[in-house]
Amino acid sequence: MNSGPGQQTLFDNDQNTMAPEKTPADKKAAPDQKAAAKDGGGKDKSGGGGSAAEQMAKKQREISVSEFFTKNRHLLGFDSPRKALLTAVKEAVDNSLDACEEARILPEIKVKIARIGQSDKQFTMTVEDNGPGIVANQVGNVFGRLLYGSKFHRLRQSRGQQGIGISAAGMYGLLTTGNPVRVRTKPGKRAQPLFFEITIDTAKNRPDAVQKSIEWEKDHGTEVSIDLEGEYRRGQKSVEEFLKLMAVANPHVYLHYTDPDGNVTEYQRATKELPQEVEEIKPHPHGVELGVLLKMVNESENRTTSAFLQEDFSRVGPTVAKEICAKAGIKPEANPRRLETSDVAKIKAAIDATKIMAPPLSCIAPIGEDVIITGLKKEVEADFYVATSRKPVVYRGHPFAIEVGIAYGKPGDTLQMTDSGKIVEVAAKKPENAEVLMGAADEPVRLIRFANRVPLVFQQSACAISKAVIDTNWKNYGLQQPRGALPIGPMVIFVHFASVWVPFTSEAKEAIASYDEIMEELRLALMDAGRKLGSHVRKGKKLANEFKKRNYIEVYIPHLVVALKDILKLDDKQVERAQGKLTNVLEKSRKL
Amino acid sequence: MNSGPGQQTLFDNDQNTMAPEKTPADKKAAPDQKAAAKDGGGKDKSGGGGSAAEQMAKKQREISVSEFFTKNRHLLGFDSPRKALLTAVKEAVDNSLDACEEARILPEIKVKIARIGQSDKQFTMTVEDNGPGIVANQVGNVFGRLLYGSKFHRLRQSRGQQGIGISAAGMYGLLTTGNPVRVRTKPGKRAQPLFFEITIDTAKNRPDAVQKSIEWEKDHGTEVSIDLEGEYRRGQKSVEEFLKLMAVANPHVYLHYTDPDGNVTEYQRATKELPQEVEEIKPHPHGVELGVLLKMVNESENRTTSAFLQEDFSRVGPTVAKEICAKAGIKPEANPRRLETSDVAKIKAAIDATKIMAPPLSCIAPIGEDVIITGLKKEVEADFYVATSRKPVVYRGHPFAIEVGIAYGKPGDTLQMTDSGKIVEVAAKKPENAEVLMGAADEPVRLIRFANRVPLVFQQSACAISKAVIDTNWKNYGLQQPRGALPIGPMVIFVHFASVWVPFTSEAKEAIASYDEIMEELRLALMDAGRKLGSHVRKGKKLANEFKKRNYIEVYIPHLVVALKDILKLDDKQVERAQGKLTNVLEKSRKL
Repeated sequence: MNSGPGQQTLFDNDQNTMAPEKTPADKKAAPDQKAAAKDGGGKDKSGGGGSAAEQMAKKQREISVSEFFTKNRHLLGFDSPRKALLTAVKEAVDNSLDACEEARILPEIKVKIARIGQSDKQFTMTVEDNGPGIVANQVGNVFGRLLYGSKFHRLRQSRGQQGIGISAAGMYGLLTTGNPVRVRTKPGKRAQPLFFEITIDTAKNRPDAVQKSIEWEKDHGTEVSIDLEGEYRRGQKSVEEFLKLMAVANPHVYLHYTDPDGNVTEYQRATKELPQEVEEIKPHPHGVELGVLLKMVNESENRTTSAFLQEDFSRVGPTVAKEICAKAGIKPEANPRRLETSDVAKIKAAIDATKIMAPPLSCIAPIGEDVIITGLKKEVEADFYVATSRKPVVYRGHPFAIEVGIAYGKPGDTLQMTDSGKIVEVAAKKPENAEVLMGAADEPVRLIRFANRVPLVFQQSACAISKAVIDTNWKNYGLQQPRGALPIGPMVIFVHFASVWVPFTSEAKEAIASYDEIMEELRLALMDAGRKLGSHVRKGKKLANEFKKRNYIEVYIPHLVVALKDILKLDDKQVERAQGKLTNVLEKSRKL
Repeated sequence: MNSGPGQQTLFDNDQNTMAPEKTPADKKAAPDQKAAAKDGGGKDKSGGGGSAAEQMAKKQREISVSEFFTKNRHLLGFDSPRKALLTAVKEAVDNSLDACEEARILPEIKVKIARIGQSDKQFTMTVEDNGPGIVANQVGNVFGRLLYGSKFHRLRQSRGQQGIGISAAGMYGLLTTGNPVRVRTKPGKRAQPLFFEITIDTAKNRPDAVQKSIEWEKDHGTEVSIDLEGEYRRGQKSVEEFLKLMAVANPHVYLHYTDPDGNVTEYQRATKELPQEVEEIKPHPHGVELGVLLKMVNESENRTTSAFLQEDFSRVGPTVAKEICAKAGIKPEANPRRLETSDVAKIKAAIDATKIMAPPLSCIAPIGEDVIITGLKKEVEADFYVATSRKPVVYRGHPFAIEVGIAYGKPGDTLQMTDSGKIVEVAAKKPENAEVLMGAADEPVRLIRFANRVPLVFQQSACAISKAVIDTNWKNYGLQQPRGALPIGPMVIFVHFASVWVPFTSEAKEAIASYDEIMEELRLALMDAGRKLGSHVRKGKKLANEFKKRNYIEVYIPHLVVALKDILKLDDKQVERAQGKLTNVLEKSRKL
């Protein structure tokens, strides 16, 4: 079909794009309106030569993204006061950690939730970090404007990715308490610390920021405070739980938390090593769709198609570029900006038909098996830990990696063997606090989900990770599993999805969409971890059996010996010797 | 807390809001930058006097809503080719119906899906209506700009509400085929028909439209064509199913559908009556949150608080206005624009503490019990139909109404009684086409969900409607029901949610969020329809038992009579009489 004109106007990037007000159509429309006027008041509005259309036209207007999300704030995780409190903390902490790690600073985060007055419905949430700080002219946009940020356009792993989160929290606070967001920031040792009061003009999605200089004894960092309507509860899906899970996946972070009653919880570091630094990559040809390719072609600064392919994509060298051009029947010297839609479609087809090296993996930073186990040991009491970190694969040109960790068996719930080979039963410990992660032996396992090191607390059943865990056959690894449900046992399953782009099922970033490629990688990672677990579980069962047999021995041998004593008329010393020997024989016969 | 300045700047509506570039902070920031330069190259970036912050600032930029949804198109229902095809049709049909009904035109919609060339992966979707048409200067925005429309800001029931749908479909088409959206429109009898080719500049979220005059033999109407990557399949979750369901909830619509193989399906009207016209209402005081109230106060054209309350809200008269002001301790004459945040907070509290008449219900148009049954009878073969239309209630100041319809029993699956009181078994009919809605007697019932007359095809398990149906105890109404599942039986449950605002769980508008108030109304509506169903089901069971007994009679009486014959030596005539009498006796004894 002829889409020439479409294609030409599509990427006409100079500022004076056809503004509806100026369109020739307008002039053309005018006479119709007169006509409309003339035969106005016809039987039905539709007869009125556009009168109905004209009426409706008057009501057409732009909807600002802030207005949209104010009305639909459940899309952002602010649908209930309780959830709102957690979501606000989550967004602030995510930003702090991203900033610290990008600046290669070992993160030190302080979270505080305080009641406003005696109210049980309004709280002040404060998150302070030791990050690089934010330059004055960006503070307003970062905290007071939706869809604004540094992460969306870059192909590199980060916690935030939409440029919505923290501004949405501020917007919700403003909506429910009328109070502005307060920010303190010091962008560097010698920078002047500044204080801001920020509100959002939702009609325009623009920040209104009031700023003043302050004193702040800190080398560098940022602190954000938001007043919001909330509900504070401990236990499941609480701020406490979120922070504990955050600590599991981020053992390099020092977290200091003060709850509304003034109780302080500290999460100490288990490692001083920052996650590996991630590099921004160019898009990989295999992930690019026609529309995007058209856009890139028209925006490219390269003069030749060959150069365009090599410069604007990752993993395309002279040879591959030549191969693609040849397959597409396009001259390598052709100016990309002059290509027709049909030519670009041919290039797309040629790209799909060409073998191209997988994209560089420097753009993502998986946690790694050792650190996963470190994190689990730090926060989860268990007697067996195992982890699997799959090598990254590519989806739609985006590298991603799946990692699984398992903590199995509450000490005391299972038997252990001492170095001397003796089997002992460890007394069961009582959970010290409400945030204990592992359930009892006869309960479903506890699944903890992470995307780019951020805990996913809500929407578990809608998440690809949960589906993959349920689809895995855990009976193969010695666990019970009801049909279509999580397996049963004293176990925590840790699953991490690390990627340059996480396909969340909503802007609230609560669950991962079940794309086939992702489900498959999840399956493989879970099976691998499951196998490692299986041998341990079976060993545990073996020990349990041994223990039973052992008990039999201890119970029956004495009786046996008494019998022998009568029959053989043994004296006590002989009785003792016989008992010792019998025990030894039976022990040996079971090679313990 | 002092939020005075925040409050003042928040609603400063003149155009020169503090543009980050012009902020004094900028100048203030400059020296820091020098400082940064001076001690630059410190050990870690953070030490570099804001150098890290400066680097990050360079990467901060706006994200256009089009860019956001292009990358996250699964949020809009374009995650798979198959779903994309249905979503595109849905958005176009929704818009056509909204336009027709607002202009009070009996809708006549033609839907066509055609393969592009021989491809099984690319299709052209065309939807034509007899609506009022669109004036030239709006066409670009309506089809080529996200978050633009007439419905978002108005409190009245409509199918569309976000101003995203059809533009998103066009964006997806462009992304996957590179072809622009084509639109023909004639805004009224004497208007000049126009043709447009529209593309979206995603970086700016602005349309690029190319326009020309054409001939179009039509009084008024609009036609949109989109080329897109799709997958065509019949059966569950197909375009066919969507259109059939659309016909159930909209029996006033004439639908003409042509599938890719050229097969034509027509859905005739069952009524010529348009849905009741809906009126736009002002917000109800009880639905307004503090942030919104602050905004309204500052934007009000009324000079006194009393006038503000009466003019800008629905259901507030002089008395109520006075009562609110008194409770808040605000002078009725006070100029709303001069109120402090704290004053407005007091007014909010006063509003919540004041009894106010429920908002007018003219803003929503429930389908009504008769029309629901008409629609069901038109498309669902059953032998019992019942419907319940709850009277509207208010949630967050938004009126909404729940309606339930039930079609029970495939003819032939149950027994019927003739006028003569004779029980007959009707032969089961074979389903004529793949789109038959009702399952077999031993299958789960079929649940069909609607929001503002639009069928909801995806995300059933995540929807408040499904949860409410599962939570209802259908055993009370004579049906089997496995725990936590839909009931079993030859039955279709129709549920409609009509509201000025539907809280969807995602922009794709596939499922309704489970707010408590909504769940409660659903529960009541389902119970009411269930009770009506129950008596019928029980009657059906009674008939079945009768039928069984009757069979016994018919089987045994002859033998009985043969025995009597021998014993009493009866002749054939007497035998006959005896048999007749016995039968009568038994019949009577069961009062049939």
